[in-house]
Amino acid sequence: MSSFVRNQWYVAAYGSEIGRGLFARTILGEPLVFYRTAAGEVAALADRCVHRRFPLSESPSRLADDKIICGYHGFTYDRTGTCVSVPGQTRVPRTARVPAYPVVEQDSFVWVWIGDAGLADPALIPRAPWLADPRYTTVSGLEPLRARYLLLVDNLMDLSHETYLHGGYIGTPEVAETPITTEVDEDRGIIYVSRHMDDAACPSFYAKSTGIDGRITRWQDIEYHPPCLYLLHSRIAPVGVLPHEDGTDPDGFHVEVVYAITPETEHSTHDFWAVARDFALEDQGVSDFLAESNRTVVLQDVAALDVLEEVIQREPEGYQELSVNIDTGGLAARRILSRMAGTPVKVAR
Amino acid sequence: MSSFVRNQWYVAAYGSEIGRGLFARTILGEPLVFYRTAAGEVAALADRCVHRRFPLSESPSRLADDKIICGYHGFTYDRTGTCVSVPGQTRVPRTARVPAYPVVEQDSFVWVWIGDAGLADPALIPRAPWLADPRYTTVSGLEPLRARYLLLVDNLMDLSHETYLHGGYIGTPEVAETPITTEVDEDRGIIYVSRHMDDAACPSFYAKSTGIDGRITRWQDIEYHPPCLYLLHSRIAPVGVLPHEDGTDPDGFHVEVVYAITPETEHSTHDFWAVARDFALEDQGVSDFLAESNRTVVLQDVAALDVLEEVIQREPEGYQELSVNIDTGGLAARRILSRMAGTPVKVAR
Amino acid sequence: MSSFVRNQWYVAAYGSEIGRGLFARTILGEPLVFYRTAAGEVAALADRCVHRRFPLSESPSRLADDKIICGYHGFTYDRTGTCVSVPGQTRVPRTARVPAYPVVEQDSFVWVWIGDAGLADPALIPRAPWLADPRYTTVSGLEPLRARYLLLVDNLMDLSHETYLHGGYIGTPEVAETPITTEVDEDRGIIYVSRHMDDAACPSFYAKSTGIDGRITRWQDIEYHPPCLYLLHSRIAPVGVLPHEDGTDPDGFHVEVVYAITPETEHSTHDFWAVARDFALEDQGVSDFLAESNRTVVLQDVAALDVLEEVIQREPEGYQELSVNIDTGGLAARRILSRMAGTPVKVAR
Repeated sequence: MSSFVRNQWYVAAYGSEIGRGLFARTILGEPLVFYRTAAGEVAALADRCVHRRFPLSESPSRLADDKIICGYHGFTYDRTGTCVSVPGQTRVPRTARVPAYPVVEQDSFVWVWIGDAGLADPALIPRAPWLADPRYTTVSGLEPLRARYLLLVDNLMDLSHETYLHGGYIGTPEVAETPITTEVDEDRGIIYVSRHMDDAACPSFYAKSTGIDGRITRWQDIEYHPPCLYLLHSRIAPVGVLPHEDGTDPDGFHVEVVYAITPETEHSTHDFWAVARDFALEDQGVSDFLAESNRTVVLQDVAALDVLEEVIQREPEGYQELSVNIDTGGLAARRILSRMAGTPVKVAR
Repeated sequence: MSSFVRNQWYVAAYGSEIGRGLFARTILGEPLVFYRTAAGEVAALADRCVHRRFPLSESPSRLADDKIICGYHGFTYDRTGTCVSVPGQTRVPRTARVPAYPVVEQDSFVWVWIGDAGLADPALIPRAPWLADPRYTTVSGLEPLRARYLLLVDNLMDLSHETYLHGGYIGTPEVAETPITTEVDEDRGIIYVSRHMDDAACPSFYAKSTGIDGRITRWQDIEYHPPCLYLLHSRIAPVGVLPHEDGTDPDGFHVEVVYAITPETEHSTHDFWAVARDFALEDQGVSDFLAESNRTVVLQDVAALDVLEEVIQREPEGYQELSVNIDTGGLAARRILSRMAGTPVKVAR
Repeated sequence: MSSFVRNQWYVAAYGSEIGRGLFARTILGEPLVFYRTAAGEVAALADRCVHRRFPLSESPSRLADDKIICGYHGFTYDRTGTCVSVPGQTRVPRTARVPAYPVVEQDSFVWVWIGDAGLADPALIPRAPWLADPRYTTVSGLEPLRARYLLLVDNLMDLSHETYLHGGYIGTPEVAETPITTEVDEDRGIIYVSRHMDDAACPSFYAKSTGIDGRITRWQDIEYHPPCLYLLHSRIAPVGVLPHEDGTDPDGFHVEVVYAITPETEHSTHDFWAVARDFALEDQGVSDFLAESNRTVVLQDVAALDVLEEVIQREPEGYQELSVNIDTGGLAARRILSRMAGTPVKVAR
């Protein structure tokens, strides 16, 4: 039984990944081929020739005149997926077409709709506006995760693991010690998890990037838009420095951490991550440090979740997890995802 | 459900591969061990000791006095598969024997009968006489294919793919553009596919080997003897040069391309290929060029078919292929193979 | 259907393998984590955090104050498996515990009880006293075997394979030629297999270590305590040199070969081996030679059994083995193991 949530928008790629060549990526088990047309638009087709199933992204398949020519027998497709030429005959069979996928490019991401194309409404795409906002500087990456996406959702919904898995990078004792508050917007299907530390050690990630030398006020406000988009509004300031009464916050440092959680297969995930900041905008040293540090943290998660996936696949069913207070957000996420999938989604087998 | 056709002769090896050592090869899922006796004959036995199943081909098993001594406990078999010695006792149990396989060496190949040995009639073996004919010079090879044999049958029955997958080597636009004629000899179970191009570009494969400098008449006459032997009679000549009325063809260049398609497992195939020519017989440069070029072409097929095998294994069942005119020969082959197998053979899962 | 025998003691490790760090090993499919407490005792817990199943042995999990702190969210366990701390709250749930395994350190081995801990009686552990006896000098090792444990039992219960698989090391023609005697102590579940050679070639293993230059009397007395402990009492002496009537044997050379056969998974085994001798006690050259030679012999077995495991997994069921006299001990072992497992244990699929 699949844990995939269909009829949803997913981040397929960064816009910068897709150019005038053929680009393959599997999303929710569906193999897709992407390319950018001469006019600059992104096209997405099913990555299998209708004839003998050769991948349209596979060499020597190639792009010519905004059309894909299959590298095996030359079946040729336009950007709508319609086959416009077959070898050895002039008549093209009426049924010769491959599915085209709705695509929207927004906030530096290429979003693709997986499901019934007739239901694809661009207004449903959640926003991460900082990533394409000149008032922010962003570093980003993409790591392959050999684990089911639910393990990454679990991981991100509870940041107390920062203290243990990411000690020395972004974790300090206060993260695990400070209770969280969790809210669920049932109508919009959004989950909020907040942890406000009034007096905490400053981890190296923030000390080196902000220059703060001492203890801090540290706010972590998670906003998860299932299934794909995860936002962590992170606010850092010296202890006692708070936003003004009018809501402005000139003395706080703001980092918008964005994850796109896109299932590749039932057992692997595209782990997109971005870190946007509103300070030291032109400082390449800070950019390099944050990129390197955050990638290290992501890879610590990847290593741990890859291990968990192996554990789940190898071991007998019927395992009972033990959940505690810190898991409230993760359990809410599973509940919402189950509702969206129309079936219980389970981390266990 | 197996797609194997049993009670048939298959090419197991080139004769040159089998000497006075133990040689293992799996055919239709059956592990076999071959060796050449002191008298020069090829013997073939099941490659599993009757005692504890140790492979008779596996070191430290060894050949002594035309008998195989198992490397685990010393059970010893003669070329008929009869066990003639066991350790620790003088009496050899009556049931101690492994199956011996009928073998015929012909046309440079070692043919083995897979099925009921009582039905093995050497007269049923199809011929490829050019490979051992001094009027021809032959280059040959064997590539491991990680794909089911039906994908190779499909590939070879329609040569329009030469234009796309082998462009620059043996493909030119005319191959894909020229219609084919297909005939099936239902009684003998042979399929003929012909494509005659009257005025075509000369691909490098033929330009460099024949010295023809200009456009050509190019005939491709396929003759498939399911399941194992595939012949491509290829005739090349300058445009307008035709065979004489008496059937002789002194001004044409003839290449006999031979494939033996031997299933190894349900998902892998021994891809034997040979190219015999009736010109430049002594020219080592032409031999080297044709060997290198044809191997490159075979490896292009292998790469594409390995990808297709992965696609088929990974993806859901129920896929519908779309067939067009060029597939007539391949579809006929599947039909004949299904009849021979006594069950539908399917490329799809 | 598992071939594992539960409610038994198994060798988990050499005592020397377990120190003040976390040490993972899977026994009978159960992942365990071991460590040595500050007081020097060995503790063994299930290697999965009760929270989200992270392996307690996996970095950055760590040992602190004789307790394991899980590297994912900091759940902390004492040596009884009781969770004593969880993140984000002071109350520890009553059900937060992982199983602890009974452990006994004896004869240089760490024995662990797999099954119902209430039944673990240390008196049931079979002995291999030579390994920790100052009157013997021991070399030992552990090789990973990618084969089911029954294949190793089969291998060790019949030493006639020494002649073929280990020729030049420990095998000579006389081993395979000399009949065996087999006895089964049904009450205690112990199998004895003896082969006494009165006049045999001396293999290099014994010639180089004992200095004997000529033919020998060679006794091999196997004593298998299913499922885990295998003893081979090996006595070597020049031809005609026998033990005295009073049972003393000052002119014989005695080697106690000990194997612990511990299933890791259904298809892999921990192959512990040790060679204890009562001669040349201080001679490091002899120790080095015996360690190197015996490891080579064990690796010859490992290579052969790894091949057999692949054969068994790959090939169709329903294979019939052919057993002869030399297999009497191995067949008795299977029968006893089946009785202990409460189900037939089969080497075939």
